[in-house]
Amino acid sequence: MAAVSFTSIAAFAQSKDEIVLEKIYKQELRNDQCYKRLSYLCKRVGPRLSGSPQAAAAVEWAKQTMQTMGLDSVYLQEVMVPHWVRGDKEEASMLSSKIPGGLQSVPVTALGGSIGTGPDGITGDVVEVQSLQELDKLGKKVKGKIVFFNRPMDAGLVNTFEAYGKAVDQRGRGPALAAKYGAIGAIVRSMSPSLSDLPHTGSTHFGAKDKNIPSIAISTNGADLLSSLLKKDDKMQFYFKTSCEILPDEKSYNVIGEIRGTDYPNEVISVGGHLDSWDLAEGANDDGTGCVQSMEVLSIFKALNMKPKRTIRAVMFMNEENGLRGGTKYFQTAKTDSLHKYIVALETDRGGFTPRGFSFDTTAETIKKYAQWQDLFKPYGLEFTNEGSGADIYQMKAIGTLCMELIPDSQRYFDIHHDAADTIANVNERELSLGAAGLASMIYLFSEYGIVTQ
Amino acid sequence: MAAVSFTSIAAFAQSKDEIVLEKIYKQELRNDQCYKRLSYLCKRVGPRLSGSPQAAAAVEWAKQTMQTMGLDSVYLQEVMVPHWVRGDKEEASMLSSKIPGGLQSVPVTALGGSIGTGPDGITGDVVEVQSLQELDKLGKKVKGKIVFFNRPMDAGLVNTFEAYGKAVDQRGRGPALAAKYGAIGAIVRSMSPSLSDLPHTGSTHFGAKDKNIPSIAISTNGADLLSSLLKKDDKMQFYFKTSCEILPDEKSYNVIGEIRGTDYPNEVISVGGHLDSWDLAEGANDDGTGCVQSMEVLSIFKALNMKPKRTIRAVMFMNEENGLRGGTKYFQTAKTDSLHKYIVALETDRGGFTPRGFSFDTTAETIKKYAQWQDLFKPYGLEFTNEGSGADIYQMKAIGTLCMELIPDSQRYFDIHHDAADTIANVNERELSLGAAGLASMIYLFSEYGIVTQ
Repeated sequence: MAAVSFTSIAAFAQSKDEIVLEKIYKQELRNDQCYKRLSYLCKRVGPRLSGSPQAAAAVEWAKQTMQTMGLDSVYLQEVMVPHWVRGDKEEASMLSSKIPGGLQSVPVTALGGSIGTGPDGITGDVVEVQSLQELDKLGKKVKGKIVFFNRPMDAGLVNTFEAYGKAVDQRGRGPALAAKYGAIGAIVRSMSPSLSDLPHTGSTHFGAKDKNIPSIAISTNGADLLSSLLKKDDKMQFYFKTSCEILPDEKSYNVIGEIRGTDYPNEVISVGGHLDSWDLAEGANDDGTGCVQSMEVLSIFKALNMKPKRTIRAVMFMNEENGLRGGTKYFQTAKTDSLHKYIVALETDRGGFTPRGFSFDTTAETIKKYAQWQDLFKPYGLEFTNEGSGADIYQMKAIGTLCMELIPDSQRYFDIHHDAADTIANVNERELSLGAAGLASMIYLFSEYGIVTQ
Repeated sequence: MAAVSFTSIAAFAQSKDEIVLEKIYKQELRNDQCYKRLSYLCKRVGPRLSGSPQAAAAVEWAKQTMQTMGLDSVYLQEVMVPHWVRGDKEEASMLSSKIPGGLQSVPVTALGGSIGTGPDGITGDVVEVQSLQELDKLGKKVKGKIVFFNRPMDAGLVNTFEAYGKAVDQRGRGPALAAKYGAIGAIVRSMSPSLSDLPHTGSTHFGAKDKNIPSIAISTNGADLLSSLLKKDDKMQFYFKTSCEILPDEKSYNVIGEIRGTDYPNEVISVGGHLDSWDLAEGANDDGTGCVQSMEVLSIFKALNMKPKRTIRAVMFMNEENGLRGGTKYFQTAKTDSLHKYIVALETDRGGFTPRGFSFDTTAETIKKYAQWQDLFKPYGLEFTNEGSGADIYQMKAIGTLCMELIPDSQRYFDIHHDAADTIANVNERELSLGAAGLASMIYLFSEYGIVTQ
């Protein structure tokens, strides 16, 4: 691109709210602190799975950062969290006479919540399935074997979260089902529509009474390789070794910063992300970006000297990734809090990419009531949709809270989700700031007008 | 982000066009060739400024690639292009007693179209201005000095192209104006809203009669440094050396691939990008992505066995960056071509980022006539706007062609525009493909229905 002629939009009289939104966006795009704060969290604190020393550092970082912001209060909410550790380097190989040398290693990583293999690893036949239904049909035939869940995320869907939603049952519930039928291990194709060598971790769930078996994610390239080898050699064996462990629960905290409302201090509007992250990278987009954007909302109010009529809170939740204990604790506290009404909870946990809209977890009827606000966001490219809300807050719906989520562009998210590429190098400063500005704008409107009830 | 509940959209009866668009998107997202082709162009051909050996290689690459696609014809359109070469490594320093050691180097790069300094470089006083108007006021006071244009792109504007449009007069016309008033050199702040150490090159224009003076871009960090030093030390001197040269014009080509229309072969619809690139990087987003997306439109038609009613062309223009000779040649050929009617020309030259819409270079009235098509693009997040069209095609408006451009998300573009970061590492495969699918969808609609006239 060499030169452009840009037709500027004709000036017209702006409403008060249009002026406020423009001020918020300009302030944020010209003076953001998001990226600098994210840099500290990613580079100095680093990976911070619940129960880890770095998770404790992240709590301290969030508290100290918000204490410098001139808020009305900053406080912690104690919560006991699971403590799963990955242990030493993981390894896996395909063993087959069809491979030169008889052996080829493939990139894998243990799934959070699973047990380790022990020092000798496990070796066994592999049974590939495309779905939990297919495994149900096989039943006890997988006894003593390793079950390989290999249904890809559908790259043909524009919304990658839709593709994720249609594939993630394999990771979440597949290993427990395999264990039920007597499998000795489980391999899950990484949750990404792209072909890559990076394995993507994530939680798998064994119920209290389920047998826990060693479970791993394999990179999408590795999954294709394994699948093609299985077709060539039905005698092939798969070996893997993991040394993850489930340790006793640890004490941790949600971190909350607050600006009290001038007119309706008992009405609470929150914006939040989660402090914990997986351990393979910096947790930049998942969910460092959500944390710094949530803090930034309060920073913008302070910088522009805006006094919210209702109380606004930034909430950094602990343990979203493998337990939701922080979100559950916040909800339980809210449920028994007779002094406050929790009118809106907004989450930002889909990466720091260019924001495309807000999801309202409510009816189309109710969303229509916000049509005027929708117009205010048009110049910033944000649409109102209904795609649920965030994992940390969705329970709040039960106490009448309007639960919402920021919806950024979804194309790059599953390249970095839960893998070693989730670093700040994959965050763009302007995209990150646009999310913060969008959130601050929405929080401003709720703080000014409350929820629309008519 | 750990788990989502995704509310899927209820099924409903789809129109024929809705079905075609869905097919195009799924085909492209599941089977794209864009990224592989772009990888060849970026990594094997590389930087390809007009007149360079690599530009010749790019012509050959485009021709050979399209020859494998089963098109009705692939042909070249000869055009003479400017041949500017950068020469050896460039250097610049600030000389001041306020600096430890008396000297600090800053990152600069010559502006295309300017002459070199000669082997000794030039050294002089610096006069900083914020605008061409300010320079006009100073007039002959800058004689014998170096003029430094330092008005930043406004980071506060959401649309970075708008910010670019408001700043780029400094690069395009500043140096010639400085020369008119007797300056010995010109320094232009890099065209980026972000702070970085990378200088961004680009064309500067000296009229036939203007005196040409050595002109450079300085990185945005360097510009801030220089400006602050100027405030501290009014005796500081600036030194820079460039060895660029203007060589005689070279023969080159536009490369065109075509699928003939079944019903109205004389009506031509084109989609294009430019083959040439600046020499500092791989020309990935500027405009390798536009080239491979344009080719991909034809690939999609072939893969889905779609027979366009009207003739569709992919045009790879030569010399967009520093002369527009290819675009001008194509226009002049079209103007005197009595056998064809050039109904639509679509360009893609704003980077391979997630597409947000199409710009129609026409009236709001006319755009409204395409409201039905606008609805077809809603599920893919594309809006119709009016922001002009592309540099290679805008002249076609004079012969009644509807000129348009694909509008991708603009946030990252000016981090990589004309600098050393414009590499394929900064292109995302899915984002690139979504652009190709959008273009193919739009080209399909025009090929089926022609331009809306009622």
